[in-house]
Amino acid sequence: MLGDFAKVDVVKAYPSTPIREVARLMAERRVGLVVLVEPGNPHRVVGVVSERDIVRAVAQGVSLEEPCEVIATKNVVALDYRESVAKAAEAFRRYGIRHVVVTREGRLYGVLSIRDILREDSALREIASYYDWTFEPGMSA
Amino acid sequence: MLGDFAKVDVVKAYPSTPIREVARLMAERRVGLVVLVEPGNPHRVVGVVSERDIVRAVAQGVSLEEPCEVIATKNVVALDYRESVAKAAEAFRRYGIRHVVVTREGRLYGVLSIRDILREDSALREIASYYDWTFEPGMSA
Repeated sequence: MLGDFAKVDVVKAYPSTPIREVARLMAERRVGLVVLVEPGNPHRVVGVVSERDIVRAVAQGVSLEEPCEVIATKNVVALDYRESVAKAAEAFRRYGIRHVVVTREGRLYGVLSIRDILREDSALREIASYYDWTFEPGMSA
Repeated sequence: MLGDFAKVDVVKAYPSTPIREVARLMAERRVGLVVLVEPGNPHRVVGVVSERDIVRAVAQGVSLEEPCEVIATKNVVALDYRESVAKAAEAFRRYGIRHVVVTREGRLYGVLSIRDILREDSALREIASYYDWTFEPGMSA
């Protein structure tokens, strides 16, 4: 399940955190996604900022001292930690994203990246067996 | 093989192209990697700029009007277009990257992203069967 592969040391910021500071967090912590949480409630997700959002801000000439909520994605793709890895793979494909937020009882649990999946043989096997089952039911074990 | 999944409409720039212009190319063309080629020889790769490189430049306060060679990766991970997809998956894992440059007879052929792989069921199957073979030789068909 997703919870086994998600990173639980999530890099967080507030909607008011400046864009450049979010970039600093990404670079220092070596992550591609920063999760925005409600001030006063670190479990409540209110948005995400991806590397792509930062690149778009640079492209559009947005001031990097602006609060990151200006460039954040508010419609966050979140999956419960008990969901299968194949479900995350589907989300990556459908929405053209590289990270999903993972929740547990509606609260922030972790972040799963497309790279986390490719790193884990067991995750790859889970996806492959899912697709086997989906597309070639007659051939599954 | 890699060549089947790589995108051949590569987004290119020169080492002298300003960072902000590279960000614009990424945003407009919806890619995460711009390949730097030698001026006068569009098949000769001299570096790559990833979204991560742009984020790092923002984090470090590098002027976005600087030529992109200042932030580019010069040690490019390139694979021949006849290599297997599993080889690319290994490169993604080993080097912590999300794109590989694909070459044909040493010339720029295309770019393969980690997302291109996850999008293609046949690519996933190729990787899964490779890992089956590698880690569980007794169980492969």
